[in-house]
Amino acid sequence: MAGNTFGQLFKLTTFGESHGIAIGGIIDGCPAGLQLDLKAVQRDLDRRKPGQSKIVTQRKESDTVQILSGIFEGVTTGTPIGFQIVNENQKSKDYSHIKDTYRPSHADKVYDDKYGTRDYRGGGRSSARETASRVVAGAVAKQLLAHMKIYAFTTAVGDLEQDKPYQELDFNEIENNAVRCADSAFAKACTQKILEVRKAGDTIGGVITCVIQNVDSGLGEPVFDKLHADLAKAMLSINAVKGFEYGSGFEGSKMLGSEHNDLYNQDGTTQTNLSGGIQGGISNGMDIYFKVAFKPVATIMQDQPTINSKGEQTQMQGKGRHDPCVVPRAVPIVEAMAALVLADHYLRSRTSRV
Amino acid sequence: MAGNTFGQLFKLTTFGESHGIAIGGIIDGCPAGLQLDLKAVQRDLDRRKPGQSKIVTQRKESDTVQILSGIFEGVTTGTPIGFQIVNENQKSKDYSHIKDTYRPSHADKVYDDKYGTRDYRGGGRSSARETASRVVAGAVAKQLLAHMKIYAFTTAVGDLEQDKPYQELDFNEIENNAVRCADSAFAKACTQKILEVRKAGDTIGGVITCVIQNVDSGLGEPVFDKLHADLAKAMLSINAVKGFEYGSGFEGSKMLGSEHNDLYNQDGTTQTNLSGGIQGGISNGMDIYFKVAFKPVATIMQDQPTINSKGEQTQMQGKGRHDPCVVPRAVPIVEAMAALVLADHYLRSRTSRV
Amino acid sequence: MAGNTFGQLFKLTTFGESHGIAIGGIIDGCPAGLQLDLKAVQRDLDRRKPGQSKIVTQRKESDTVQILSGIFEGVTTGTPIGFQIVNENQKSKDYSHIKDTYRPSHADKVYDDKYGTRDYRGGGRSSARETASRVVAGAVAKQLLAHMKIYAFTTAVGDLEQDKPYQELDFNEIENNAVRCADSAFAKACTQKILEVRKAGDTIGGVITCVIQNVDSGLGEPVFDKLHADLAKAMLSINAVKGFEYGSGFEGSKMLGSEHNDLYNQDGTTQTNLSGGIQGGISNGMDIYFKVAFKPVATIMQDQPTINSKGEQTQMQGKGRHDPCVVPRAVPIVEAMAALVLADHYLRSRTSRV
Amino acid sequence: MAGNTFGQLFKLTTFGESHGIAIGGIIDGCPAGLQLDLKAVQRDLDRRKPGQSKIVTQRKESDTVQILSGIFEGVTTGTPIGFQIVNENQKSKDYSHIKDTYRPSHADKVYDDKYGTRDYRGGGRSSARETASRVVAGAVAKQLLAHMKIYAFTTAVGDLEQDKPYQELDFNEIENNAVRCADSAFAKACTQKILEVRKAGDTIGGVITCVIQNVDSGLGEPVFDKLHADLAKAMLSINAVKGFEYGSGFEGSKMLGSEHNDLYNQDGTTQTNLSGGIQGGISNGMDIYFKVAFKPVATIMQDQPTINSKGEQTQMQGKGRHDPCVVPRAVPIVEAMAALVLADHYLRSRTSRV
Repeated sequence: MAGNTFGQLFKLTTFGESHGIAIGGIIDGCPAGLQLDLKAVQRDLDRRKPGQSKIVTQRKESDTVQILSGIFEGVTTGTPIGFQIVNENQKSKDYSHIKDTYRPSHADKVYDDKYGTRDYRGGGRSSARETASRVVAGAVAKQLLAHMKIYAFTTAVGDLEQDKPYQELDFNEIENNAVRCADSAFAKACTQKILEVRKAGDTIGGVITCVIQNVDSGLGEPVFDKLHADLAKAMLSINAVKGFEYGSGFEGSKMLGSEHNDLYNQDGTTQTNLSGGIQGGISNGMDIYFKVAFKPVATIMQDQPTINSKGEQTQMQGKGRHDPCVVPRAVPIVEAMAALVLADHYLRSRTSRV
Repeated sequence: MAGNTFGQLFKLTTFGESHGIAIGGIIDGCPAGLQLDLKAVQRDLDRRKPGQSKIVTQRKESDTVQILSGIFEGVTTGTPIGFQIVNENQKSKDYSHIKDTYRPSHADKVYDDKYGTRDYRGGGRSSARETASRVVAGAVAKQLLAHMKIYAFTTAVGDLEQDKPYQELDFNEIENNAVRCADSAFAKACTQKILEVRKAGDTIGGVITCVIQNVDSGLGEPVFDKLHADLAKAMLSINAVKGFEYGSGFEGSKMLGSEHNDLYNQDGTTQTNLSGGIQGGISNGMDIYFKVAFKPVATIMQDQPTINSKGEQTQMQGKGRHDPCVVPRAVPIVEAMAALVLADHYLRSRTSRV
Repeated sequence: MAGNTFGQLFKLTTFGESHGIAIGGIIDGCPAGLQLDLKAVQRDLDRRKPGQSKIVTQRKESDTVQILSGIFEGVTTGTPIGFQIVNENQKSKDYSHIKDTYRPSHADKVYDDKYGTRDYRGGGRSSARETASRVVAGAVAKQLLAHMKIYAFTTAVGDLEQDKPYQELDFNEIENNAVRCADSAFAKACTQKILEVRKAGDTIGGVITCVIQNVDSGLGEPVFDKLHADLAKAMLSINAVKGFEYGSGFEGSKMLGSEHNDLYNQDGTTQTNLSGGIQGGISNGMDIYFKVAFKPVATIMQDQPTINSKGEQTQMQGKGRHDPCVVPRAVPIVEAMAALVLADHYLRSRTSRV
Repeated sequence: MAGNTFGQLFKLTTFGESHGIAIGGIIDGCPAGLQLDLKAVQRDLDRRKPGQSKIVTQRKESDTVQILSGIFEGVTTGTPIGFQIVNENQKSKDYSHIKDTYRPSHADKVYDDKYGTRDYRGGGRSSARETASRVVAGAVAKQLLAHMKIYAFTTAVGDLEQDKPYQELDFNEIENNAVRCADSAFAKACTQKILEVRKAGDTIGGVITCVIQNVDSGLGEPVFDKLHADLAKAMLSINAVKGFEYGSGFEGSKMLGSEHNDLYNQDGTTQTNLSGGIQGGISNGMDIYFKVAFKPVATIMQDQPTINSKGEQTQMQGKGRHDPCVVPRAVPIVEAMAALVLADHYLRSRTSRV
């Protein structure tokens, strides 16, 4: 069954394969009357695009979004916003090394198992190229939620971990370095690590933290559609993500209730925020923060033994230009998915009272 | 907007407040022709119910499920399965201590903020009592998936952590101890820890691991409805959950691609399974395993300062009989939610090919 | 796949078989803060129940609704409203005449074909008994939409047709006669017709008209979820319905554009209302009106040849007490479904603008 | 809220305004492995396009569909099928006559009321141009359902009505005449009628009948998602549709049960088919047939008084090239929507049994 739609009221449906004619999507449910800054949308896309720095893939793609509908005279009309990003990278390449061969820890084999067929060009639908469409929609969602501030940034590359609490970091620093850390010294260490890994023809994982400020209280639905449950799904739906924690997270499982409870100030804010801005699935107006773990990219520039579709042993080596670490380019994707979740619940919250 | 339904083809919708007349739900989409063992359903409910051991809440509730529809002569008919669990605990109690007072790290205040009103009796809808309905539906889902084996078990209580890999544990041990560990020595240590914490009027968090064996390959949809994304949402929708990781999880973010890739055996299985049985969002037939972090229960038997609905400072102490650690009773809930996700994707997978 | 839920924001999910333990449902998405008059809910149920007059089935069922959740101190809390109607009619009857025999123009055979099994007691899930749950939910929806007025009434029984336009009818008359006509002379004629048909052991069809006044403008979504498209689905989902038309309806297809166009008054109302209060799928504030055609009840008190599940020819005669004409009891069902559609779009319209 | 998606398992989401850059959509849920004949898709589009005969609008648009994803080497891959139809008709025209003026019986005013803004170029999103995307998706659905035969054809233009039962008509005749009647003599009369109406600067309504043969039994879900309820919604979602009836339809409401019941043959087929191939919402394998009523096109070439957005009285006359009767071009749209409903239930039926 179809699984290419995200959201219930602010809905994104995407289409497109890595090396097809175009990728794109439809945003359905964006309210009318939003003055849309299309340059800001392209800016977020540029933050995700390949070739933007020496620590990411050196592929050159301009990733220009074209809006096809839903906006008239600069303002959303309430009708669906169709958009596409034409693939420039379509020329017939040599895919013989992956056509019949299953790349380890890729989705090649499960696609064949599930569908009996697969677009093998550059990973087809399983490629992270699809996330460009999410960035477009997320950028629209951000403008709907202009009063909230969403900051994602790198807090680990391999075993290098940012140990300062986020309150001590400088969000203005994020776009000043290629790794997108909120701390220049840490950024430097991460950059060096990634360059070393790339030189070895290897790849490495990392962690992105996301902080959302000025959140409306009352977002999120009790029971299944808890705000953090939808955030978890959103994050785990991003390619290469292996884990999600919010507020106190896994560390919170080690604590006592007497340590963990967030006591109230008289104004209704809390003295601590181990709840991560969400209680019982509903935002309470405090900062929302969460962490997302990314595995190392599966395509490495080293020889690996594998099998082909006939079940024969074979060797393969990654070709092409791939990211040594997915985290720097994943920062805008994390922001986009967070924005989509918040926009959806922002609209949903309008029906909670008569 | 409504958020009380889980699943797309195997759908559970629940209703009910902690101290209302009844809780229950409707399972819609269970295929016809399933010979249903209702005793097994009740057995799972009994694993969740209060009062079953000395380390859980001593409230006495029989939690008996009554099936109202959808089953005829012992077999599902393809029509919705309505069910209820009548609350025995409805007698008018004294709730004055929580009626106007906001319990720290509970949902009391956000419910008032969101809805302008709240059923304050025992937490109302925000109480984990709602999860009993999930256990019922999960037990039905398990029978639909009888060929798969779903094992959840406790792997941490506070800072006590199970460090053996799950392959070395004994799943037959799980129901032999009150904490539901798959290792009797570890169970003993956890039991002692929980008893100490309870004696101090405090509570403590923990971690549950879930392993699913004999999984069909091909379950899960690419892009947004990845199998692990739906598992993440399912787990984060359980009360008190703060984090989720599958396969290599957060540890995987520290690894190199050359270490992390799961190389294929000639039969299509993989030599390692850092992927956690899921690649590109689709099950590959290897074991699925994931971890779920639970925070300490917010209700503690100690005095805490807090505020009331008028914004005045006040003191409160937890009353009643509460769990010192939620993890032992959450084991069947984790299993239930895993079963719901798998049942949904099991049905969805039937339409992936012409 | 499941098909037991109606609505997107104001959602009703129903369960239950004709002769099971109970029927009922869950209303999810009713906003918090609605002071609910439960007597008005029961009153609508009483309008639908059997045995209320000499022209409907003489079965005696009290059809008492019990609310299980979602309402606290008389006010909706924003959480799901679970409810049930316990079947009093469960005693083991003799169903041998329908267990293996397929009643003509009933759903017996298609249920067996589709599901391989069927609850044959009194039609099981295919019985119109299920619509009692819709009446409950519709009565809640009506209270959410208290500013709108929804009137359904009988405008044809067999070839007896009400030929006055609805503007000349008296809606206060509807509940004064058993057929629920908005005209006492017409009611008398219909009553006599139904009594004749019953005497002959036969049944007869009819038409219900529904008029909705004081409708908010702006309800309905362009394209697929046009307000009248959702009304059409709602009406066709009622047992025995064969047709739906709104505004000018089938007659409109015979007209010229110059006759059919509704010209504007200066205040934005229209001089005529062939549009039926809906233009481009969106309500314009004028009266909405539509007609619903019901076929004659399939169960007749006459001998009919048929087949059994083994494909053998056999004879059968309707047993029990059935309606000679479904229309009088269907009036509150039409109202309920109209209310559900309007409540859904009423909530949906809250997100059309930023 | 969004309303631009149709279907649950075979889902179409559309975007696009009449005079925007492009219209198009995403088909999500089409199973993998379908060898797709793209020429047949274009053929259906050509049946809908303007300028194809002297009785339809003389606008010239080539309406060429471009598939952007989801098909690889001629076969569906199970991933979403994105497609677009670039608008050739975008050049800046003079829209001053409709920019601020509300055309009678059009959606101009309700769009302004609902959204506070509107793309006034050629009707924007409310234009029937959007249905071209439905024809594309319907043509794909038809290929998934190649074993079923879907025939739509004109059975009334104004008060000219085809009175032969469909069994006596010749479906091969449909594409031989511009009105798309299944009878050449009737086609001739309809053509003349339409030409007369056009000459008078007027428009006229009509009726389309649809017959579906070789239908699988077991399609449709009981209760809300009855097969005919979904067909009704599908048809009423088409621009200008005012009514729907299936099987005996409104005429059935005049009949006695003893006349209306379809008695079984020994092989399970029925002697008559007043049920219209659907019993209890589920297909029984007999022909499905239904009628759809279309109102006359609202744009006429005559002067009409109306109001503008300031509430002032004004005059307007239709400009441009419009259809004098929508029915001939609506035939492929009716087929497309029928195919979408059937494809959806065809996939849904795969989960009705264990």
